[in-house]
Amino acid sequence: MNENMTLDLPLTTCRALVMFGATGDLARRMLWPSLYALDCDGLLPPGFALIGAAHSKASDTEFVARIREAVQASANGGLFDAAVFDRFAARIRYVSVDAGTAGGIEPIRAALAESAPGEGGVIFYLSTPPTLIGPICGALRESGIADRASRVVVEKPIGTSVASAHETNEAINATFAEDQVFRIDHYLGKEAVQNLLALRFANAIFEPLWNANAIEQVQITVAETVGVEGRWGYYDNAGALRDMVQSHLLQLLCLVAMEPPASFTPSAVRNEKVKVLWSLRPITQADVGAHTVTGQYAEGYAGGKPVPGYREEEGANRSSDTETFVAIRAEIDNWRWAGVPFYLRTGKRLQRRSSEIVIQFKSAPTNIFAEVGASLAPNVLLIKLQPDEMITLSLMHKKAGLNEMALEQVGLDLSIEDVAGGSRRRIAYERMLLDVLRGNSSLFVRRDEVEAAWQWIDGIIEGWRTTGQKPRPYGAGSWGPSAAIGLPERFGHSWHE
Amino acid sequence: MNENMTLDLPLTTCRALVMFGATGDLARRMLWPSLYALDCDGLLPPGFALIGAAHSKASDTEFVARIREAVQASANGGLFDAAVFDRFAARIRYVSVDAGTAGGIEPIRAALAESAPGEGGVIFYLSTPPTLIGPICGALRESGIADRASRVVVEKPIGTSVASAHETNEAINATFAEDQVFRIDHYLGKEAVQNLLALRFANAIFEPLWNANAIEQVQITVAETVGVEGRWGYYDNAGALRDMVQSHLLQLLCLVAMEPPASFTPSAVRNEKVKVLWSLRPITQADVGAHTVTGQYAEGYAGGKPVPGYREEEGANRSSDTETFVAIRAEIDNWRWAGVPFYLRTGKRLQRRSSEIVIQFKSAPTNIFAEVGASLAPNVLLIKLQPDEMITLSLMHKKAGLNEMALEQVGLDLSIEDVAGGSRRRIAYERMLLDVLRGNSSLFVRRDEVEAAWQWIDGIIEGWRTTGQKPRPYGAGSWGPSAAIGLPERFGHSWHE
Repeated sequence: MNENMTLDLPLTTCRALVMFGATGDLARRMLWPSLYALDCDGLLPPGFALIGAAHSKASDTEFVARIREAVQASANGGLFDAAVFDRFAARIRYVSVDAGTAGGIEPIRAALAESAPGEGGVIFYLSTPPTLIGPICGALRESGIADRASRVVVEKPIGTSVASAHETNEAINATFAEDQVFRIDHYLGKEAVQNLLALRFANAIFEPLWNANAIEQVQITVAETVGVEGRWGYYDNAGALRDMVQSHLLQLLCLVAMEPPASFTPSAVRNEKVKVLWSLRPITQADVGAHTVTGQYAEGYAGGKPVPGYREEEGANRSSDTETFVAIRAEIDNWRWAGVPFYLRTGKRLQRRSSEIVIQFKSAPTNIFAEVGASLAPNVLLIKLQPDEMITLSLMHKKAGLNEMALEQVGLDLSIEDVAGGSRRRIAYERMLLDVLRGNSSLFVRRDEVEAAWQWIDGIIEGWRTTGQKPRPYGAGSWGPSAAIGLPERFGHSWHE
Repeated sequence: MNENMTLDLPLTTCRALVMFGATGDLARRMLWPSLYALDCDGLLPPGFALIGAAHSKASDTEFVARIREAVQASANGGLFDAAVFDRFAARIRYVSVDAGTAGGIEPIRAALAESAPGEGGVIFYLSTPPTLIGPICGALRESGIADRASRVVVEKPIGTSVASAHETNEAINATFAEDQVFRIDHYLGKEAVQNLLALRFANAIFEPLWNANAIEQVQITVAETVGVEGRWGYYDNAGALRDMVQSHLLQLLCLVAMEPPASFTPSAVRNEKVKVLWSLRPITQADVGAHTVTGQYAEGYAGGKPVPGYREEEGANRSSDTETFVAIRAEIDNWRWAGVPFYLRTGKRLQRRSSEIVIQFKSAPTNIFAEVGASLAPNVLLIKLQPDEMITLSLMHKKAGLNEMALEQVGLDLSIEDVAGGSRRRIAYERMLLDVLRGNSSLFVRRDEVEAAWQWIDGIIEGWRTTGQKPRPYGAGSWGPSAAIGLPERFGHSWHE
């Protein structure tokens, strides 16, 4: 396997970005504001064109007005500057397309010829429902609009099972070689996640600690307070396991667990990540009851206000058995990790919005300070992703003063904000878009990763099906069903507070 | 070996402290102000008497006036409170003694009977020239003033060689059993030093790193800017090796290098320390030239002002060959440390007052970020003792921003001041005196430690003698002779800046 050639695509080969789903929610909240921010910083090449494509009709002027509004309303709104926006707006064209057919996307050809004539690749960003990925890739191939210099960016989910993911990937790869494909997982664009890689592989002190000898357990939590937010139909076909674990949680698990890559090239990094996925111990019918807990939120509270249960949401099927919460005890069967549980947990309508990776080291084997009354807490490396990004190493140290040896826990903060020297917090998509421009796919998900992740996920779903495991109700605003609290406790562990 | 019984001496057995050398420099600058601070905090038992003993004549009133002055002028001057001082002063008596004979110390018996009648032990603090240790202990025995309940505190140096240390210890132990003896090394009273013990033995993450596999080198520096400060005669008989390395530097080395003790009892801790001293590889005639550098300060600058050289100081012998600087590459021949150099360095009239322990970990075995332009510095744990106390762990981390992987070094501070919650910085002697009161000798130096340290030191002195190694001149205000810079460099290391 050698994909190092992806590093060789020079930046200058890109002349335009075509965004399918240009008027959608993700585009409005994240993608256009991120592109604007890159332009602010001079990171979009001169003459680089931005072509919005969607089904509805709109003029360029109307579309630009919407983008202006979106940028101003976004987290990057503080960056808004009329002069910069004028420069940004001059890059933008809008075309109305029927994305599923070669003929239907023909307007893109004309817009590219006009806005970005000449040589150079085009980035196709598919910010669309997953069902459109195959048809759009087909249309791009048949129309000849995509060529070897093109790049394609696709959002998760890729498929809903290993079979459907394989089918989608086949459709993508029928048009784009794997080194042209950027499957985005924006969690990997977060500073704290990249800093985890820096800490692990730029500091010699972590490697001797990064294994089953020194680590007791790992926890990865992505907790949301929101509900399904008007996407009931989509969500009900997915559920928490497919929607979150298959993508974000397993990607984070890979970065924690991977062996040191031989280099920081995309193929070296992704080779190591996929090895972790291959090493995940399958959760079979026999284990699924003991190693997974599912839940579905019932009515309760969010932000102090009463909210309906999942089955009472608008458009809901009152008898849905889709899980909105899942907790899993995963294990990795390799030399480094054998015996270390990786507890994964994600859900909607939980008590607090909080995404974090907790690496808890083993307890000290003996407490020589017990005689002077000190108790010891195990060391923890906490990588916090939401709502704030920071990395904290907690240690025991001696309280200052004349005590014989009074100990207390103290957190050494590697705060992302502090060290940024007061610079603006970036939207993760800014980094990801820039990496697409740079042609650096290290932080993007390779085809074999997607399919290996689905293979493990499919085993769990099959286990639930054969054992008839149904989600347990939990009150909105709680931490999920109480069985989820019990999951790590049965193995002598507790969720990090 | 079982000295746990020292832990069993209850606090209440102490009814008084008798300070020999009560009018001396150390007593004035450190001991009386520390006792005053303990009294401020209610840590001196009610009725606990303080008896100053020295050769000169003075009334109690005159003596108390001097103590008042000393407290006010000291680092604890900010604590001065007239009402508290009155309570403190009420404890104080002064007796004029001839310390070398049973008859000469007889006034102490009367003062004790009057100030602190009843049961309970007496602490005899020998803040005197080392030559008086033997005679005072003899007088205390012959007079019967010391008994099994007494404790004795002695200052370094104990002897000037293994033979003379043995002789002094024999004299001490003829009066006091070893569990009654508190040989003080005030460096061990510093917060950062005790915190080093807490970090090592209360955190599981350090033990896997604390050995030759992970540590490249250790440096212990005690750099002074002062010269001999009017003590030329004393100093010229000692030199930097005997005056500083035998005591402070080897004690710090022991705390860094010791195996985890089975408990935090005095005997368990000191058993491990003495094992380190026994494991020091002797520096023989063959190695002394390559592994030690000596220097003697010549004229130069201190604090921007011209200062005389060592041989031009008041009372100096113009042809003295005493070293005022020494640098040593020490090695510890045990499983944990084999091959790790411990660089020791101390001197007078150096550029900056700075005492620190530097634990430098090995470099990362490979730099996967070299391709994106990042260079890696090795991790360092820095334990700073002077002028400020703090512990810092330096790491590489990713600079925030859109860079692919720009790394920089960042220091995680475990600042002693920060964590003290704004509480007053303690004089190290406060802690040490309180430990004497508590009967806890963990941080005091046991007889076998003293003699094992001298054995190693004697070997170096013998090496210098037989090879004729003389100190090289260095300018006051420099970092010692240039050969000292070269010492670690020859082994691929550099002094920490």
